[in-house]
Amino acid sequence: MKRKYINLKPSQLLIFIFAICIIIGTILLRLPIATTASITWLDALFTATSAMTVTGLIVVDTPVAFTIFGEIVIALLIQLGGLGIMSFAVLIYIMLGKRIGIKERLIIQQALNQTSIGGIIKLVRNLFIFSLTIEMIAMFFLAIKWVPDLGWGKGLYFSFFHAISAFNNAGFSLWSDSLMGYVGDPITNIVISGLFIIGGIGFTVLSDIWYKKKFQKLSLHSKLMIAGTFIINIVAMFIIFILEYNNLNSLGGLPTLSDKLWASYFQATSPRTAGFNTLDIGSLEEPTLFFMLLLMFIGAGSASTGGGIKLTTFIVIILAVFTFLQGKKEITIAERSISQIYILRSLAIATMGVFFIFSAIFLLSITEQAPFMTILFEVISAFGTVGLSIGLTGSLSMIGKIIIILIMFIGKLGPLTLAFSLASSKEEKIKYPHEGVLTG
Amino acid sequence: MKRKYINLKPSQLLIFIFAICIIIGTILLRLPIATTASITWLDALFTATSAMTVTGLIVVDTPVAFTIFGEIVIALLIQLGGLGIMSFAVLIYIMLGKRIGIKERLIIQQALNQTSIGGIIKLVRNLFIFSLTIEMIAMFFLAIKWVPDLGWGKGLYFSFFHAISAFNNAGFSLWSDSLMGYVGDPITNIVISGLFIIGGIGFTVLSDIWYKKKFQKLSLHSKLMIAGTFIINIVAMFIIFILEYNNLNSLGGLPTLSDKLWASYFQATSPRTAGFNTLDIGSLEEPTLFFMLLLMFIGAGSASTGGGIKLTTFIVIILAVFTFLQGKKEITIAERSISQIYILRSLAIATMGVFFIFSAIFLLSITEQAPFMTILFEVISAFGTVGLSIGLTGSLSMIGKIIIILIMFIGKLGPLTLAFSLASSKEEKIKYPHEGVLTG
Ligand SMILES: [K+]
Ligand SMILES: [K+]
Repeated sequence: MKRKYINLKPSQLLIFIFAICIIIGTILLRLPIATTASITWLDALFTATSAMTVTGLIVVDTPVAFTIFGEIVIALLIQLGGLGIMSFAVLIYIMLGKRIGIKERLIIQQALNQTSIGGIIKLVRNLFIFSLTIEMIAMFFLAIKWVPDLGWGKGLYFSFFHAISAFNNAGFSLWSDSLMGYVGDPITNIVISGLFIIGGIGFTVLSDIWYKKKFQKLSLHSKLMIAGTFIINIVAMFIIFILEYNNLNSLGGLPTLSDKLWASYFQATSPRTAGFNTLDIGSLEEPTLFFMLLLMFIGAGSASTGGGIKLTTFIVIILAVFTFLQGKKEITIAERSISQIYILRSLAIATMGVFFIFSAIFLLSITEQAPFMTILFEVISAFGTVGLSIGLTGSLSMIGKIIIILIMFIGKLGPLTLAFSLASSKEEKIKYPHEGVLTG
Repeated sequence: MKRKYINLKPSQLLIFIFAICIIIGTILLRLPIATTASITWLDALFTATSAMTVTGLIVVDTPVAFTIFGEIVIALLIQLGGLGIMSFAVLIYIMLGKRIGIKERLIIQQALNQTSIGGIIKLVRNLFIFSLTIEMIAMFFLAIKWVPDLGWGKGLYFSFFHAISAFNNAGFSLWSDSLMGYVGDPITNIVISGLFIIGGIGFTVLSDIWYKKKFQKLSLHSKLMIAGTFIINIVAMFIIFILEYNNLNSLGGLPTLSDKLWASYFQATSPRTAGFNTLDIGSLEEPTLFFMLLLMFIGAGSASTGGGIKLTTFIVIILAVFTFLQGKKEITIAERSISQIYILRSLAIATMGVFFIFSAIFLLSITEQAPFMTILFEVISAFGTVGLSIGLTGSLSMIGKIIIILIMFIGKLGPLTLAFSLASSKEEKIKYPHEGVLTG
């Protein structure tokens, strides 16, 4: 028995740990000391899952429903969930690097420079030190803005909570309207977005930058992540700016061009997968919401605090389509080629995502009375562990809440689990003759 | 110059021929003799494209707007489009079989038993004879029902038009309410659905059945298509029956259980990609409409008159996901294994589809004032060349019409073109070192 327990796959262990933490979190949030007025077990479970999976969808308004004790439980769950998934992902990639070919091990070594057990422990320690340091620095800068606004106690406490929530891409806020009160404030915009971009780009990329210093020397993964993040954020900012410019309930209602630009920047970067908002998401135009569905589905980086199918997964898919259209068989970029197994993995992860999203939408379209876009937005937000909503979360039926809980859980752990099982898969023992089928 | 023309790729030639036919069709439909009252060039182009791509979306009501001359032009375009794409697809697969490895040639040989030039000519002749024979038999049976209802002249003419429209999966009807008047009629249901299922399963499968007789001896492709068509139709019928049972505007409003079952059967089979309706599609429940989006996206068989990404493409994707989840590397089914290149092709075709659908929805959400589901349904219907609509087609803006025209064209020719360029792709000349990226 003991041996069996030890033989749990890393991905199974991860799922087990997450489930345990969510259950403990649920019990803690259900304590009378955690809430201002009693909440249901289901709402406690929803909140604990949302915090542990760093999603940020809320069935009860965080600052209204929870006491400071409850909020600190939420902050701890966020920290556990964010750092947990990040370090676990790094560990899994290292373990895969040991088991599989030299080629793949090189990626990890390049990115992390660590393969011994001692190295792994050091690596995880570094990850924790790095994360906490970043959060503390950010807390300091946020305090500069928020202590004058809110006083010492509340100002520091808000800075502490939002630094954790932002670095871990959780999107939980102690303001009922998220960060709408700071829509045009440079400090809030820069610090919060800086936190979730650093937390979301992936620890392997950060390590890579730390050790290599120069862009040319970085691994292909790091190059794609950095260039990809830059390009997608600029493009998204531009699109949102154009689409919302005349919307009086969003950009059109802001007094200065500076406010409009900050708001566009923030709502362009936040959907992948921070989930904070400085504009009222429910008031955005339909094309903007539709575009955000894509951003939420794509998400942040591998081995990061963010969710979604991951930016590199999306980039590989896009490159693959262009490559195939040119009649080529192999993706080449930045003087490297990406072999078919990575394309296959990326497509499998995206397909799985679409499958779960599709199923959840179908079920919710039966259980909930809401416009189709509202359901679509909610499900993809849960899958990408984003936390933005155009209003469904608050009015979800009981079954609806359970579905969204499951989708948050699957959205957080699914892509990593799948990436793991794809990477560690073995050849068949029974060999059948090959035969093709016509497609397209 | 002459040599260059001859060197057009088969897929380029196909696109060229389709474009020419659509232009000729547009001019013919714009003639005063074709319409009861003058229609715009754009509406003529829309109708010609819809007919040639066997889609069936209509901006003007066919029996109201067109004279018999106009209707016959539409029927001819449908016949050209349906038979054209089917024979071209067969030819392309044969040509690929000649160029590429023995393994792939075997698939084609197995399915068609034809590889010489003489064999090809015979094959296409067989395809035409077979199709016209089926249409004539179906016309006879339809006439049994419709001549008593409509008189000799109109009855035979309607049988002729609908036999062509159904076999070619076009969905055009001479009744303004499609086949709603025959919702519970066994002859209409069996003949029309028989036509579009035979036309939609793919000519390679029909040849295979003709030559092999026994299911066990069929190619893997034929087995998957036959079993897949059977399963998906049963499942879809069951789901639609359950979802619509209490809807007074659809099944709930029908007097007998027999009517309800026929209607469920018909609306389960028609969305992949016939496009006729015996129920009012606009009155269906949202979960049903959402489920139909999936059916429309999947579509019919390769080398058939139907559209969509194709049923085998979908089956390969589903099998791939399950295979990967089990930690296996290769799909095994029916004592055969499907190699990764087929998975890759299937995923590329589906991804391309999603890409075009996504782009069209985004643009239409800007240009059209309509609920999101209405836009979604219209775009996927156009992409799958289905022709069902919940009301957007009639009220499309000018830009909206152009977008739908493009999507019909891409939906019909895209998957085949992509399948061709994927299958004929060559290795790179410049070799770069391989490097992986993290995904998921
Ligand atoms: K989030
Ligand atoms: K059709």
